[in-house]
Amino acid sequence: MIKDLILINGEIMEKSEATIACGDRGQQFGDGVFELVPVYNGRCFALLPHMESLFKSVMAIKIPGIYTVEELVEFHEELIAATGLENGEIYTQVTRGEGNGQLAFPEMMIPQLTMFAVEKDRTVLAGPQEKGVTVITETDERWQRCDINSLNRLPEVLAKQKAYIGKAFEAIFVREGKITEAVEGDFIIVKDEIVWIHPANNLIHNNITGRLVKERLAPDMGLQVVEKAFTVDFALKAEEAFIVGPQYEIVPVTKIDRKFVAERQVGPVTQKLQAAFKEFIMKECPKK
Amino acid sequence: MIKDLILINGEIMEKSEATIACGDRGQQFGDGVFELVPVYNGRCFALLPHMESLFKSVMAIKIPGIYTVEELVEFHEELIAATGLENGEIYTQVTRGEGNGQLAFPEMMIPQLTMFAVEKDRTVLAGPQEKGVTVITETDERWQRCDINSLNRLPEVLAKQKAYIGKAFEAIFVREGKITEAVEGDFIIVKDEIVWIHPANNLIHNNITGRLVKERLAPDMGLQVVEKAFTVDFALKAEEAFIVGPQYEIVPVTKIDRKFVAERQVGPVTQKLQAAFKEFIMKECPKK
Repeated sequence: MIKDLILINGEIMEKSEATIACGDRGQQFGDGVFELVPVYNGRCFALLPHMESLFKSVMAIKIPGIYTVEELVEFHEELIAATGLENGEIYTQVTRGEGNGQLAFPEMMIPQLTMFAVEKDRTVLAGPQEKGVTVITETDERWQRCDINSLNRLPEVLAKQKAYIGKAFEAIFVREGKITEAVEGDFIIVKDEIVWIHPANNLIHNNITGRLVKERLAPDMGLQVVEKAFTVDFALKAEEAFIVGPQYEIVPVTKIDRKFVAERQVGPVTQKLQAAFKEFIMKECPKK
Repeated sequence: MIKDLILINGEIMEKSEATIACGDRGQQFGDGVFELVPVYNGRCFALLPHMESLFKSVMAIKIPGIYTVEELVEFHEELIAATGLENGEIYTQVTRGEGNGQLAFPEMMIPQLTMFAVEKDRTVLAGPQEKGVTVITETDERWQRCDINSLNRLPEVLAKQKAYIGKAFEAIFVREGKITEAVEGDFIIVKDEIVWIHPANNLIHNNITGRLVKERLAPDMGLQVVEKAFTVDFALKAEEAFIVGPQYEIVPVTKIDRKFVAERQVGPVTQKLQAAFKEFIMKECPKK
């Protein structure tokens, strides 16, 4: 068990004692952004690319930067040390701070930084990673800037709950007939030995673990990657399908809305990518 | 000056002392809804329709109901009495409460109710109401369920800020070439003595003050109302244009993106509706 601490504006305290102002614009308008960094063996995975992604989101919604990358790196390390986190993730969110209830930005913006550690037992992923999972589809009703990791996550909340109620592992979003992404990861298929993934445009989060697969692991294995949206029918005819996300690593998908993806089992490309993914992580985050 | 109090889960306290838990799902996911009730002469305007609207939003995102309409009515009255609010609004928000950081709903949901009074000097509206205002257009990138008064308001925050920076009174959203609504009200035009307003579908909030104009005041004046989306060009060719919202009452629009709406000044239909609106309010909320 890790210590239940939280970091607020650079200061670490007991989570039970930590509160935020009622007028925080995160609470009132979802006016902020988040980032989630996986932790293995007490080390952050791909911390700098995640911080780059956080800064991109912060700038996109025009929150003034108050911390440097170096400070945020330090906060991650301090929080891991203080909580004793070995495996899990560090969740970070930045809101525009306290406001006066009006939609337009406050005259004086003092952004609010909140970070906490979440412990995860990744052995529970072994089953899904080995045998594959069922996903459901959900109409993608999100806004047009899914590339920003904003705190406006209500459509994701509702889709995730629908998956949970339907005893599915995850929900995948479908916009205008095409799959965009899973709620918490990229949805990728393999067809004719080609890896298909939605283009990294305004309609997907473009998460770091997905980028690792598409930009590095797949090319290293000699696989061609095509960034092109595809339909659910096309995915059902694929040889393999999987989700990649910071909370899942690579989880094969064997059923979409109770229909089998063509091969009905975990395919060889997925397995090779899973092995390469784990190897990459163990190199980046070796045991201390 | 009103007393700076806040009502949290039924209890009134000093706003400066009030805080919420860091893990509140409002703060983390914008997982909640809001409502805004105008107050005139210490009385709520159209309180029951507003509460109906709040319950509709609460149910749409599946937050369990913990208060009855009667209790919410009482909370409004208590808050007005305790703060001494004469003119302004009561802002209410309900979130799904504290979570464990996961997107899916927590096992035990204890919704969080927050209500506070905002004092407004409506005399500052006299100028805009008499002379008309300039608005800018902004691409409507919001999600597909704008009919839910959710706390996912980041696109509205950014549009409002753009209007503020551009010295415009308000921003109006344009989706696929058609005007949907203003950030904080309905956008209505008058053409050939017909009142045009966007259909009350999933793309607009369908606010109560807008409904008052379209369902009651305009028909009472013998005006035909057409619920049909229209383009910016169509609006520029209209005789009159105005915004109606709880914070504005009826404010004429004389310029869109620096181009004049046809008549260049406040039109007779708008003026008649403004007078009828004020009369309606004074009947509903007479001086005590």
